[in-house]
Amino acid sequence: MKKLNTRLNQDPTKLANRSFKVQCKSWSQGPPPLTESRQPMEGVVRSATNYIPLSPISFLERAAKVYRDRTSVVYGSIKYTWEETHRRCVKLASSLNLGVSRGDIVAILAPNVPAMLELQFAIPMAGAIVCPLNTRLDSSMIATLLKHSETKLLFVDYQLFHKAKEAVNLLTKTHSESRPPLFVVMSEVDSQSPLTLVNEYKYEDLVEAGATRFPIVRPYDECDPISLNYTSGTTSKPKGVLYSHRGAYLNSLGCVFMHGMREMPTYLWSVPLFHSNGWGLSWGIAIVGGTNVCLRRTDPKDIFDNIVRHNVTHMGGVPTVLNMIANSLVANQKPLPHRVEIMTAGSPPPPSVLSKIEKLGFHVSHAYGLTETGLSTWCLWKPEWDLLPIEEQGKLKARQGVKHFGVEDVDVRDSVTMESVKCDGRSTGEIMFRGNTVMSGYLKDPKATEDAFVGGWFRSGDIGIKHPDGYIEVKDRLKDIVISGGENISTIEVESVIYTHQAVLEVAVVARPDDHWGQTPCAFVKLKDGFHVNAQEIIQHCRDHMPHFMSPRTVIFQDLPRNSTGKVEKYVLREKAKSLGSLSH
Amino acid sequence: MKKLNTRLNQDPTKLANRSFKVQCKSWSQGPPPLTESRQPMEGVVRSATNYIPLSPISFLERAAKVYRDRTSVVYGSIKYTWEETHRRCVKLASSLNLGVSRGDIVAILAPNVPAMLELQFAIPMAGAIVCPLNTRLDSSMIATLLKHSETKLLFVDYQLFHKAKEAVNLLTKTHSESRPPLFVVMSEVDSQSPLTLVNEYKYEDLVEAGATRFPIVRPYDECDPISLNYTSGTTSKPKGVLYSHRGAYLNSLGCVFMHGMREMPTYLWSVPLFHSNGWGLSWGIAIVGGTNVCLRRTDPKDIFDNIVRHNVTHMGGVPTVLNMIANSLVANQKPLPHRVEIMTAGSPPPPSVLSKIEKLGFHVSHAYGLTETGLSTWCLWKPEWDLLPIEEQGKLKARQGVKHFGVEDVDVRDSVTMESVKCDGRSTGEIMFRGNTVMSGYLKDPKATEDAFVGGWFRSGDIGIKHPDGYIEVKDRLKDIVISGGENISTIEVESVIYTHQAVLEVAVVARPDDHWGQTPCAFVKLKDGFHVNAQEIIQHCRDHMPHFMSPRTVIFQDLPRNSTGKVEKYVLREKAKSLGSLSH
Repeated sequence: MKKLNTRLNQDPTKLANRSFKVQCKSWSQGPPPLTESRQPMEGVVRSATNYIPLSPISFLERAAKVYRDRTSVVYGSIKYTWEETHRRCVKLASSLNLGVSRGDIVAILAPNVPAMLELQFAIPMAGAIVCPLNTRLDSSMIATLLKHSETKLLFVDYQLFHKAKEAVNLLTKTHSESRPPLFVVMSEVDSQSPLTLVNEYKYEDLVEAGATRFPIVRPYDECDPISLNYTSGTTSKPKGVLYSHRGAYLNSLGCVFMHGMREMPTYLWSVPLFHSNGWGLSWGIAIVGGTNVCLRRTDPKDIFDNIVRHNVTHMGGVPTVLNMIANSLVANQKPLPHRVEIMTAGSPPPPSVLSKIEKLGFHVSHAYGLTETGLSTWCLWKPEWDLLPIEEQGKLKARQGVKHFGVEDVDVRDSVTMESVKCDGRSTGEIMFRGNTVMSGYLKDPKATEDAFVGGWFRSGDIGIKHPDGYIEVKDRLKDIVISGGENISTIEVESVIYTHQAVLEVAVVARPDDHWGQTPCAFVKLKDGFHVNAQEIIQHCRDHMPHFMSPRTVIFQDLPRNSTGKVEKYVLREKAKSLGSLSH
Repeated sequence: MKKLNTRLNQDPTKLANRSFKVQCKSWSQGPPPLTESRQPMEGVVRSATNYIPLSPISFLERAAKVYRDRTSVVYGSIKYTWEETHRRCVKLASSLNLGVSRGDIVAILAPNVPAMLELQFAIPMAGAIVCPLNTRLDSSMIATLLKHSETKLLFVDYQLFHKAKEAVNLLTKTHSESRPPLFVVMSEVDSQSPLTLVNEYKYEDLVEAGATRFPIVRPYDECDPISLNYTSGTTSKPKGVLYSHRGAYLNSLGCVFMHGMREMPTYLWSVPLFHSNGWGLSWGIAIVGGTNVCLRRTDPKDIFDNIVRHNVTHMGGVPTVLNMIANSLVANQKPLPHRVEIMTAGSPPPPSVLSKIEKLGFHVSHAYGLTETGLSTWCLWKPEWDLLPIEEQGKLKARQGVKHFGVEDVDVRDSVTMESVKCDGRSTGEIMFRGNTVMSGYLKDPKATEDAFVGGWFRSGDIGIKHPDGYIEVKDRLKDIVISGGENISTIEVESVIYTHQAVLEVAVVARPDDHWGQTPCAFVKLKDGFHVNAQEIIQHCRDHMPHFMSPRTVIFQDLPRNSTGKVEKYVLREKAKSLGSLSH
């Protein structure tokens, strides 16, 4: 075939003044500077008619019109429509607007109560940045975060008031130059709050006093921050993750898709709203006009009661919550009105939990993401997999899967050469992300951002593989891997084998330094009540089920230390393993 | 309650250096200039890691990975996977890239064949702008559009080759200075194309010759145009609607949501791909890894055959197509494998068609939009409406409804004062849109763009009302309304009453000038075969079912003139009504 260019070049009369050379600027070299001056196409206009900065605020404004009389939030005797929720948020924003400026940080310390949901919208609608704090943190850590974020205003649930007060006292004691945040206390409407408030505002008063015709504050630029979420910090000091309006908008959409939601679902808040703004769904439920069922405590009885009472269609939960539901007392269980979709993330659901919980009428999906990326991948289920044996299904579902559409790319790459690893289910590399849903950066930590953003990718610090079908699977945290005799050993893999031993309740594997091997695997095990096994039995069990070099050389029986989000604090165990010294001499 | 600002002001020690005055720039005043220099928040970074211009191209790239082995397109003996479709598009883009530059127009004249779908991606991937032409246009109109768009390259289906040739001959004859576009001919793979091609390229040769490792061309800015669609021009000369990558991205997502699609649906292309790039779904199906079932001709037999053969889950069609299916020969119908979702737009589905087609196993949704906005609203169905009587359901479904999330706002406003009309189901105004899914502007027609973009809104030219539940309903085209004795008469309303007469097949109502009343309604009616009624009967039927002033004073029996997209050419009828002169003297 004649090439198109040859042909065109042969016909000069037709071709004069045509330009054929395309400036092929590969995107991987980074975006062109936004100031680049170009002549726009004749007819292209950018105006208030056709350009609005993307923001989750639009989801609420739309919900107030489209789903106006549908229930937005239900909690005890509280029940609002989307129109009411919008009005309350506007009023709250107008009250806030008197005290906070564009770009200020407003923090919240609260469980999954309705106010927590409202604040996800109301704070950005006042132009400020919403910072949900982990309720399990101690007052000293809260003081550190309030200081780091320069929080102007702190919303506190009445049950957490004393903890917050203590944090602020600590803050003023240790940093006398710091201006402590003002308090707004959220009480339970039903209950008499036992607090005597003197210098604090009351949440409902702020709502009450607000103006309904307040012109809400929109971001100047959709890349302006909407939220600040602190990482849980299993290994180092917490980092403040800034998320943009644009990123939050796209991630919320992606999460709604991933959950398989259609119009007007009912979502039970069994996932803490302080984790990445509720895994993107604090804003996302407004997109589909769903009903948010709030939940102060995540216990099996409350979960079953709420599912049945409100006809819940979707919910989420870390594996611990799934475990809790699967092993709950039969007296606390209720027959489900229909199949309930449950999304899990954090670590893969163990097969035994999976089969138990699905028998109860739940359907489990498995997602993956970091605070820095939001939920970004999920194990998209192919219909033909339904025909496979249950164990096979469990293995497939343990994978972290594929990206949602808002994520530009996820890959597994060599941390040094940055080359993509093979899709062979064996070659390991670091899981990396790029796209509009990746964070804007770490607050006041340019060094950490620079370390995380390398060559156009965000480095997750997680070790993974790619299966032949392109699905990724997390093998370990980069810093958790054990390197023994030059071989990489995935501690997650060792743990999963130890978990199959009938006496084991919990296990965590870390590296123990070794003069000969460099490192050897060291297992910390908690046994189930009434079981007694010794270290040798565990080691033998491992040797029976995996290569010898991967089996732990040391087994220690004890409770596992956990942080505020329930994650095992491996750095504590690593310290302990280190203190044991080398096994080989 | 003490106001937040009062309180803050009372405590000067805490407040020094805090700024409380928010520059509340209301967005309705238009976006701030993008060059505004602001200090970004400490920690916010915009880089290739976290900022990628939105483009539907990303949907295809993702589908090639996530849905790699799922069927992307099926047509006769042709069947591709998403990985193959992506590879073919990259190769095609690389061939195109030798001949076209960033921003060039590449037009297509083809029915819904696989190449038509591929080109929606491949042309933008070469940096060019895709311009799908209506296959029903005559060669003279095609010549006008080729000239106006300065099309560089024209892809033509073999069956439309002679029409296209004729257009180009016309173009060179009437505009000797114009450089005619080069041709690429798309043949049916199965059939021997009867064409003798001398100076033309063949589609499959271009695919064949392309490079798989071609670095595709990404937009510099997501507001750069991706497509050019000409309006059908029922009333005036066609206008070229430029659509941005950003708008197309968001509109595709919105359309997938509106269709109620989950993962991996099967979509039958009974809607022409040349209408607004297939109502946003040419790109949208890639988001959910669906299967595109192509269709050269839209006839009932082919539709039923394809639904059954490929297990179609979703499709679309103008009311004419629905009508055709509902009234098809029983011999051509087949029992559906499951309920098939069918989206209709263009005009409300008549109740009789609705009940017939739903009995066949389809479920009808009703959407609304213009070339300038893409499909933007739909009659979002509330579950409780299922309990209403069928006629009531038909009335509700005839409404154009509510916006999808990608549309920032839709409203009904007074064309002069721009004030929003009441949600009372009676007050009329002009339907207006704003948001990122509104077009970038009309190509080379700044005057038309300026007329359409008024006060931050795109004026649709459609007259509508808002119901108490916020759902909008189109009453008429602004220029189609009849004003009789100072009363606005919706011609659509008069038509819908005449349609209920059992003898009527088709009807169109226009204004007839009147010395006394200003105008009176004049109905053009086509009767069903075998029926005979006179004008007086039609008029009496109207008087029995609506206010007398709304009833037509004139009824003329004839075939209705239709344009290339099947819309009734009311301007032809208006001319005819005008030529009748005044009824009153």
